Parts: sequence; structure tokens; C-alpha cells
Amino acid sequence: MSEGLARFSINQMTVKQLSLPELAAACTESGIPGVGLWREPVQAYGLEETAKLMRDAGLAVTTLCRGGFLTAIDPHARVRAVDDNRAAIDEAAVLGTDTLVLVSGGLPDGSKDLHGARSRIAEALAELAPYAAARGIRLAIEPLHPMFASDRCVVSTLAQALDLAELFPAAEVGVCVDTYHVWWDDQAPAQIARAGRGGRLHAFQLADWVTPLPEGVLNGRGQLGEGAIDLRAWRALVEEAGYAGPVEVELFNERLWSRPGGQVLTETAGAYERHAC
Amino acid sequence: MSEGLARFSINQMTVKQLSLPELAAACTESGIPGVGLWREPVQAYGLEETAKLMRDAGLAVTTLCRGGFLTAIDPHARVRAVDDNRAAIDEAAVLGTDTLVLVSGGLPDGSKDLHGARSRIAEALAELAPYAAARGIRLAIEPLHPMFASDRCVVSTLAQALDLAELFPAAEVGVCVDTYHVWWDDQAPAQIARAGRGGRLHAFQLADWVTPLPEGVLNGRGQLGEGAIDLRAWRALVEEAGYAGPVEVELFNERLWSRPGGQVLTETAGAYERHAC
Repeated sequence: MSEGLARFSINQMTVKQLSLPELAAACTESGIPGVGLWREPVQAYGLEETAKLMRDAGLAVTTLCRGGFLTAIDPHARVRAVDDNRAAIDEAAVLGTDTLVLVSGGLPDGSKDLHGARSRIAEALAELAPYAAARGIRLAIEPLHPMFASDRCVVSTLAQALDLAELFPAAEVGVCVDTYHVWWDDQAPAQIARAGRGGRLHAFQLADWVTPLPEGVLNGRGQLGEGAIDLRAWRALVEEAGYAGPVEVELFNERLWSRPGGQVLTETAGAYERHAC
Repeated sequence: MSEGLARFSINQMTVKQLSLPELAAACTESGIPGVGLWREPVQAYGLEETAKLMRDAGLAVTTLCRGGFLTAIDPHARVRAVDDNRAAIDEAAVLGTDTLVLVSGGLPDGSKDLHGARSRIAEALAELAPYAAARGIRLAIEPLHPMFASDRCVVSTLAQALDLAELFPAAEVGVCVDTYHVWWDDQAPAQIARAGRGGRLHAFQLADWVTPLPEGVLNGRGQLGEGAIDLRAWRALVEEAGYAGPVEVELFNERLWSRPGGQVLTETAGAYERHAC
């Protein structure tokens, strides 16, 4: 018998047209056990209110997206970024998730120094990791596809993410593996094994790779099964490395957002069962 | 005294609005000693005619772009691809360049097997490398940015390109390092050193990385100095690795193509002297 949706989690951004109560109701109706949430809609609806909504619906909050953006050079901007990440950690704790996903940040204006930016992330993590651990929250560094290296995330590979994470205890800092970001990388399988050995596989997300990419390249992720990624093979890799947690589907896609959210949710759950189980 | 434009080469695509005679005249006028050519405009103007035009203008043809697209599964398509690459090698020889740049090709329709595609490239190179060597042509595998992995080039890193190249003698198969494709990769400096040690640095191209990327992501390369890449640092890396050849500037950019080509050529030469010398 298939495990069905037992480990499925829908990231809120996939169906961002749904309000939080609509999302909770649709998940209950479809037998979806988990959701990944984003800070902005949670703040808009209310933090405590969201936590109660999810508890009442029996939904696990699998991750909170997202902290990070830790590459600023300006000292005031750096203090603000660390403060904002402390707030994100507090929010994660209230929501009852154990994982805050970090998108590290791009190059500051005018800088061409990727190495320096990565060093500043490490410095910020040294402040944030113990703060998070004290609240039961693990930080999950998400490498983003290299096409985002300048403007969003200077951490482009799992190897780079693990180099950063391993400066800290595994219970404090690990990685988030998203197929969309790592699928092209022939070093990623070995890095997934490395993460598993170290107990640092903190989150796993699915999205498919489709072309042509849209302007700005942010909102062109493909529905599972419609693109170039062998999703089942990547899932097998994380599981061989010891991952037994939720499998979150996170699609940023204008076409999906233009359709009724409940329909997209059902379709996504079906695509997950067909292509990733 | 600066070396000025002594090693500069303009890739034809940067100023594709210029006809070949216009390009030759503009280069002569600006003191530009080299050009990288593309097969399609050369074929349209005439192969022998182009060769004569470049010889008469005293212009070095630094590369021919491009061969490759060697990932097909269908046997007929594979034979056609190898034949077409033989033709490209013949054309390169007539043009008097020693280097044919290879863009390896993406995933065949419906395939999700990057590893298999890379293996088929190796098989095709086994046929092409000796054919090229017999005509004095070196093949230069160009890793393309991972955002092109599915639809254009399954070789995404210098490490992958060198893994392929090293199956053959260095005089037959090497790599083309283009800053636009490798700048995000913290492993690239070590791979440039590896390529240099092996005598496999066959071509070096510059373009800058600017965002937002346009739809389709192909034609958004930045003018030198306008983006995130430390071009001088990358040039230093290839030179420390022993590269002393031409430095070719290859920009695909709709904005540049919409302007008078002569103006773009002068501007690009100036940007090269300011940001890459």
C-alpha cells in the first residue's frame, strides 16, 4: 500500500491565493497533514491566530519560511537583519514548527565579493543558532539555484550550505534541500549523504524545473512531473541519507496562482502521489 | 603602459547588428585585433568570403561558435549531430581559427537523465576529437550556467567540462571559461588551475551578470562593469593558470542589439580596458 499523503506538506506559497482559514479547511478536506508557512501572511492574519488555526485543524507546521538575508555590510542593516531573524525564530516557536528556512541573501549593492558575503552569513549564524536552539528551532540553510546568486542567495550549492552549517552543532544548523535548486548539480547526491551523516537534513522540498523561465526567473517553478527533474530519485537520495521527515511542495508559479487554490491544492497532492511517492 | 586592446577579441554576437564587412571595418578602425565568429552568419555571408574578409582586415579569428548539441538519444539525430560538428570543424579550419567552442546540448525531450546525456557527449567527442585534431582544431567544451541545464547544456560546471575533456588528449579537447557561466561557482578557481595544469584552457570569454534576468534568460548578459562579476579577478585566475590567449567579450543583450553596432563595439572595447585589463 502506498503511503499516500502521510508525509506530504503543502507550502503555503504554492496556493497563496488561499487565505489561512481556506488553506486549513482545504488541507483537512483533502487529508493533507502538513503545511509550510510564510511569515508575511502569518503576520497579516495574526501569529497566535494562525497557530490556533493550525492546531485546531490538526495540521503540522513543517517549516516557517523564511529567515536569512544576512549578507549586508552596513552595520545598522546587519543588526536589523539579526533582530528580524530573532523575530522569525520566535514566530516559528509560536507556530509549533521546529524548522526555520534561511535564504541567505545576495550581494550588497555594488559588491562583487561572494566570499565576503558568505563569511558574513557565518557571523550572523553564530548569533542566531544558539538563540534558535534555546527555543527548539533548527535553522535550515537553503542553497538557491545559482541564477539567484547575485540578488537573493550567495549560497548556491549544498556543499556551500554544509560548509556554513558545519560551523555549528547539527541540532542548531542544517540544510533545506529543494530539488528545484540542486537538481543540476552532480555533486548534490554526495552532499546529501554528507548532510545525512551529520544529521543536518532539516527540510526537503519539491518543485519541478520547466522552461522557458519567466522574466525575473522567480515564479516559473513547474508542477511536479511537468519538468526535467527525476523527483523520485531525489527523494530516494534523501531517504537513503536518513531523512524521514515531511516532503514539502513549494511552487512559485503565476499560472497556478491565477487558478482556484483548492483545485491547485488537489492537483498538487495528486502530482505528488504520482511523481514523488 | 597598459596592454590596451592587444588581447581583446569581440565575439560577433555582441554586435550582431553589424554585417561581417561592417564588423571587419569597425574592428580595423578601433584597433581591435580579433573576432569570435558564429557559424550561421558566416554561412550566410559565405565561408571562403568570410575567411578572406578577415585575412584582408588582418583580424584573428579567435574562436568559432559553436559546435555541440551532442545529447540526442535517437540514433539518426546523433549521426546528424556528429556530421554537423564535423562540418563545424571544417569551417573552423577554413576560417583559420584553432578553436571550436562546444555547447553540449540539453536533455532530450522527456528525458530526466543528466548523467546519461553527459555520457553521450563523451561518445560523440570520441569521434570528433581526432577529426578536429587532424585539421588543427581544438574543441573547447563550454560549461553553461546551471539555468541552461535542461534546455541547452547539461555541462554546468568547469569540473564537469574537465571530466569530459580529460578523456581525450589536451591538444584535442579543453574548455572554454566564460565568466557569465562560472562566476557563482566557488569551485571554479580550483578547476581553472586544473585546466591550466593540463593545458586545457582553450578559450576565455567575458560577460557580466546583471539582474533581473529577461524571459528565457538567454539575452540578458551585462556589459562589462555593470554587474556582479569581478572580471579582473577571473582574468587573473586564468592567467595565473597559464592562459595567455585572446580575451573574447560575448554579450547577448537585446538592449545592445537595438543600438548602432559601431557604438556598441567602441563602448565594449572601452569597458574591457576599464574593467578587465
